[in-house]
Amino acid sequence: MTSPPARSAEQRKKDTLHRLDHDVDAWVATADATSGEPYLVPLSFLWNGSYLLFATPASSRTGRNLAASGRARVGIGQTRDVVMVDGTVETVEPADLTEQDAELFAAKTGFDPRELATPYLYVRVVPRRVQAWREPDELDGRELLRDGRWLDTD
Amino acid sequence: MTSPPARSAEQRKKDTLHRLDHDVDAWVATADATSGEPYLVPLSFLWNGSYLLFATPASSRTGRNLAASGRARVGIGQTRDVVMVDGTVETVEPADLTEQDAELFAAKTGFDPRELATPYLYVRVVPRRVQAWREPDELDGRELLRDGRWLDTD
Repeated sequence: MTSPPARSAEQRKKDTLHRLDHDVDAWVATADATSGEPYLVPLSFLWNGSYLLFATPASSRTGRNLAASGRARVGIGQTRDVVMVDGTVETVEPADLTEQDAELFAAKTGFDPRELATPYLYVRVVPRRVQAWREPDELDGRELLRDGRWLDTD
Repeated sequence: MTSPPARSAEQRKKDTLHRLDHDVDAWVATADATSGEPYLVPLSFLWNGSYLLFATPASSRTGRNLAASGRARVGIGQTRDVVMVDGTVETVEPADLTEQDAELFAAKTGFDPRELATPYLYVRVVPRRVQAWREPDELDGRELLRDGRWLDTD
């Protein structure tokens, strides 16, 4: 089986932005700020061009880890076509989210935490680093965004 | 769109064992034992009936986190058809792995760390808890293995 050639940086960025816009679910890795125990769950997200927006019950492991540690690593896509996002976390009470973000989130993910009895937190993950790769031949050049800025792909 | 009904415990266990046997890749979440920073990468695995076997460069973030923290959480499958494994970790030098495990690992994953110049560690993840769910209606009853033992599904 031959693999397609490694993608250019420009193509990877294009594919990555397409995935951020169109994929619905991501794998969200967090850790307990005290014990360091790793946690991982699939969650739906909205990408608004600047940050990933998630929602999780305030009392959930993910909610508590995000609020306490302020860090997340997010995997989007398939294991052999991944977008990895390392980001800083801002938790947002539903009452403090913009109406536009809340409506877009509900429209994309199909669930609206504002309508639920369980107290939810919205969570913004602001990318500090974004990487994208498929097979090992794409590990070189996998970094697309560094220190919060997209790298030049021209 | 209507979803299929929630699976029985027996069906979930059967589906889970099938996935453990046949899936090649998993999402492996770890955390830095000191800073608590979460980490996540896709890695290929072998399931031998008792543990998941991975391999990772000894100097990689995942390798260092696993060796130091002894904990991993592993997601297998798709975001809406997941098997989640929380496990304890044993790192194994290539020279200390059984020939059988090494051969089965190479046959399944298509790569053989024994042949590589980069120093690799094998990693056994022994499940302490296994959960499986598809959509929210399957969150109840998602636990299939607890404290290292499969629950009775009869």
